[in-house]
Amino acid sequence: MQIGCIGAGSWGTTLAIHLAHLGHDVTLWGHGAEQRERLRRERENHLYLPGVAFPRSIFVVDSVAEAVEASDPLLLIATPTQHIRTTLTGVAAVDLDRRVVVSTSKGIERGSLLRISELFEEEWTLERDRFVSLSGPSHAEEVSRGIPTTVVAASTSRASSELVQEVCSNSTLRVYTNDDLIGVELGGALKNIIALCAGIIDGLGYGDNTKAALITRGLAEITRLGVTLGASASTFSGLSGLGDLVVTCFSRHSRNRFVGEQIGRGRALEEVVAEMNMVAEGVTTTESAYQLALRHGVEMPIINEVYRILFAGRDARTATLDLMRRETKHELWT
Amino acid sequence: MQIGCIGAGSWGTTLAIHLAHLGHDVTLWGHGAEQRERLRRERENHLYLPGVAFPRSIFVVDSVAEAVEASDPLLLIATPTQHIRTTLTGVAAVDLDRRVVVSTSKGIERGSLLRISELFEEEWTLERDRFVSLSGPSHAEEVSRGIPTTVVAASTSRASSELVQEVCSNSTLRVYTNDDLIGVELGGALKNIIALCAGIIDGLGYGDNTKAALITRGLAEITRLGVTLGASASTFSGLSGLGDLVVTCFSRHSRNRFVGEQIGRGRALEEVVAEMNMVAEGVTTTESAYQLALRHGVEMPIINEVYRILFAGRDARTATLDLMRRETKHELWT
Repeated sequence: MQIGCIGAGSWGTTLAIHLAHLGHDVTLWGHGAEQRERLRRERENHLYLPGVAFPRSIFVVDSVAEAVEASDPLLLIATPTQHIRTTLTGVAAVDLDRRVVVSTSKGIERGSLLRISELFEEEWTLERDRFVSLSGPSHAEEVSRGIPTTVVAASTSRASSELVQEVCSNSTLRVYTNDDLIGVELGGALKNIIALCAGIIDGLGYGDNTKAALITRGLAEITRLGVTLGASASTFSGLSGLGDLVVTCFSRHSRNRFVGEQIGRGRALEEVVAEMNMVAEGVTTTESAYQLALRHGVEMPIINEVYRILFAGRDARTATLDLMRRETKHELWT
Repeated sequence: MQIGCIGAGSWGTTLAIHLAHLGHDVTLWGHGAEQRERLRRERENHLYLPGVAFPRSIFVVDSVAEAVEASDPLLLIATPTQHIRTTLTGVAAVDLDRRVVVSTSKGIERGSLLRISELFEEEWTLERDRFVSLSGPSHAEEVSRGIPTTVVAASTSRASSELVQEVCSNSTLRVYTNDDLIGVELGGALKNIIALCAGIIDGLGYGDNTKAALITRGLAEITRLGVTLGASASTFSGLSGLGDLVVTCFSRHSRNRFVGEQIGRGRALEEVVAEMNMVAEGVTTTESAYQLALRHGVEMPIINEVYRILFAGRDARTATLDLMRRETKHELWT
């Protein structure tokens, strides 16, 4: 098959290589002329996936339009959430016709508070059934080394999600399908806030008990927001919720956990973010989730504290103690 | 209050110290005359919690009967599951009358396949409402250092679980209540099988993606068995299920994960177990869960593989690959 891939970060590149190895032709576009030139010349991604050679069937192109054009039937979008609108700005709705758009972005658009599928529906009038969210616990560094990994392809259309399952699966990458698109999109995005908070706990020098409490109560919180927004609760116990949450909270690869750890050690958010060459989606998602929770009247004690720590100078240790001292509760009542 | 504590392992000792610090009188019994003598003389548990001094209100006694006698209203049982019957063998049903029995054991009795509450009901005719299971992500080493920790007190009686909540809570140990006793007991026990498997994955050199997949699919599996046995599914997403599962799968303190890691490196089960001075409940629980699943006709692909690896010479790497190659599925269909 012909697969277009917009975005040559670590995950986009990893998927492009994976799909090329499975026998597909992949047309890859990445941000920055110089970066594309190096990808083409060196046949590897020196910035995000050094040492992993491109198979011959990866073609690096210089315009988004070429990658879209070359995609049949799948167009993969693997750019940071906040860049999708500008990256695809020259693409017309008609260009996406008859294609299935697969997004790997895990975020909520700032300001509009749109999920990625909603963004494509509003901006490119993409039929909902032709959108697939690919999510789950899949650090690129591990997938590229052939470490056994599972992901979930979510769509309102069984045909679309099964197409992605068929195209992407092999014995080291196992793809499940799910028809709860809202739940999978929100799980992937909201879990980054909890991962950021897990990093804060690491930075404060707390332990595994604290992190397990955070993961459990944090998952309950994002499930509550998700259900209010139309998701099914059980999706949050799946790969895109629990699975991705766990890997992000414990992994040394996670950018969101890393940002939190620096904050927990007392550094300022701007300073930490300025030093990174990757995007930590959790920072923006914290703002968006905070606004969504306000709008829909959902009680989110943990996310509120993360928001205050990141954006309002709240002391992290005091915030933790306040969470521990809340009125004692029945486990399933919050 | 007067609290009796049967069992001076790491968790029993930690709870005894915690309760003494909260102002209660604690009567502690531990296994072995020599060990009790040292506890009394050194005022610390050199074996399981070295360096943490006993408060004055801990009294070490030489018989189980004394600890039972001195408990009013709470009797804490913190011995390995398979030792409860023999440890309490001289205790008569009448001795437990009017007391609330709090068990911290996370296992299923070998052979009888009884949960701890069922064991107390059958053997000591304890009223169900006077039994509380105390569970959740609480590595003793961290609780003893004042690391923020959450646990759950489960009972069919709200009064009993709230009593435990009231007696045990402070700003570093937050106690939730739950009325799904079956779910909390099974979550605490069954999660050890998945933790053992997480260790196997570590031993094989796989990564965080693989472990996240295991945790997600493993939690789905133990939830399925739990629901068949009368538990509520949501309990498994709480502290005694998900929370304890996560901490056990990632923590360097976990004995079950440790046993699995050694197995994953190719060592024999008997050899690994023989070297440990603590009990890894997960080994016995794997046998019990395997038998329960057979009896009730529940499909448990992961637990079956762990059983075969531990007891039937199955190769761990082959087992992992076979799990990855199963027929592709919808996420919520298994």
